Amino acid sequence: MTETDAVLSANLDFYRAFTMRDIAAMERIWARKAQVLCTHPGWIPLSGRSTVMASWHDILGNPEAPRVMCHDDIAFVYGEIAVVLCEEELPGGHLAATNVFIKEDGAWRLLHHHASPILMRETPRVN
Amino acid sequence: MTETDAVLSANLDFYRAFTMRDIAAMERIWARKAQVLCTHPGWIPLSGRSTVMASWHDILGNPEAPRVMCHDDIAFVYGEIAVVLCEEELPGGHLAATNVFIKEDGAWRLLHHHASPILMRETPRVN
Repeated sequence: MTETDAVLSANLDFYRAFTMRDIAAMERIWARKAQVLCTHPGWIPLSGRSTVMASWHDILGNPEAPRVMCHDDIAFVYGEIAVVLCEEELPGGHLAATNVFIKEDGAWRLLHHHASPILMRETPRVN
Repeated sequence: MTETDAVLSANLDFYRAFTMRDIAAMERIWARKAQVLCTHPGWIPLSGRSTVMASWHDILGNPEAPRVMCHDDIAFVYGEIAVVLCEEELPGGHLAATNVFIKEDGAWRLLHHHASPILMRETPRVN
């Protein structure tokens, strides 16, 4: 398995935990040593493991939490950090996600998640 | 100057180039060796320097391009990669931004920019 494959696998683990509302898996996916960050759609940025994990406890504890499918996932590896860009498909629409991973103890763990609504499918030309 | 200060300074250079519509400065700010990425508000993710820079040429070449003020900027340094979380103030509202930097030839250069509308000021509790 290449590093790129390993990062994409970690990314799918994140979406599996999200869709299965599996808080124990979600706890395992996020980095333990590095400072973690999260910008949920429409929210201000969060930082710190306790704050970020509390937000996931709230989201996954909600029986109305949406099921999320990830597609068009591409990984970019920069040494011990990797960035995955992907799209998230929810019942209400599509989101663009940035997921940043860090290698801790040989495993790719989630460092930052930022998701936001996709309003334009084509690359706009504004001039 | 600490690494954190250097990253925040590079982040302010990005917003200065944006607000001054200075495409030459914008070209200097983005990484040259590492693959660059960009998710503009509402857009699908872009990757590759030529695609990302073309998007900035379009945005900065538009006389209607908004002036952007950055505030509440916080930097997190992870070795040769750093993440800045900040808010962007535009005439039409506020955005949450993730700016990822990489150290290239001793300088912090922009690797990825992701900005999205802030719809909620308070941390929501969904359960």
